Amino acid sequence: MGGLEPMSEERKTVIVGQSKPLLNYVTACITMFNGGAHRVVLRARGEAINMSVEVAQVLKKRFMSNVQISNITIDGENVTSRDGRQLNLPVLEIELSIPQ
Amino acid sequence: MGGLEPMSEERKTVIVGQSKPLLNYVTACITMFNGGAHRVVLRARGEAINMSVEVAQVLKKRFMSNVQISNITIDGENVTSRDGRQLNLPVLEIELSIPQ
Repeated sequence: MGGLEPMSEERKTVIVGQSKPLLNYVTACITMFNGGAHRVVLRARGEAINMSVEVAQVLKKRFMSNVQISNITIDGENVTSRDGRQLNLPVLEIELSIPQ
Repeated sequence: MGGLEPMSEERKTVIVGQSKPLLNYVTACITMFNGGAHRVVLRARGEAINMSVEVAQVLKKRFMSNVQISNITIDGENVTSRDGRQLNLPVLEIELSIPQ
């Protein structure tokens, strides 16, 4: 995705985890859009996936109604857990964009 | 979506919850595809969303490699909780299809 584009300017990624409150991720997105990003990708793995969907919803409904969900992809990621097992974690990426 | 199509034949929905094991939802999808469905939609709310992503991944990787993720949508749903509060739950729908 976005192979030839100037990634650093155009497309930013917010990694959504479970340790921080929802609004931290929402404000991270707002900061990036206000800083000139045209597209922001919310990326979450495993149990954080539902929070990433909620972040997108809250951002759109309560803060930035002009933001559109331009793409959603599902993927898997191989991770080695602490006890040495191989896990295949689901990954969700939600691309948010502001129409120019 | 699918306004004029014969919904009962073509497009089936699996509601993903949290009470049942993952493989129950995987086998539900397999049964529907084997029964002639061309498209199966996985629908999940709130905390079940991550499981729906995992169901899609497991189905594709371990059981039906010909299944494609044809569409993913995010939505919100207003729900009244047991103590009377209004909640806006995030909803994720993953449309799976077999190319004809």
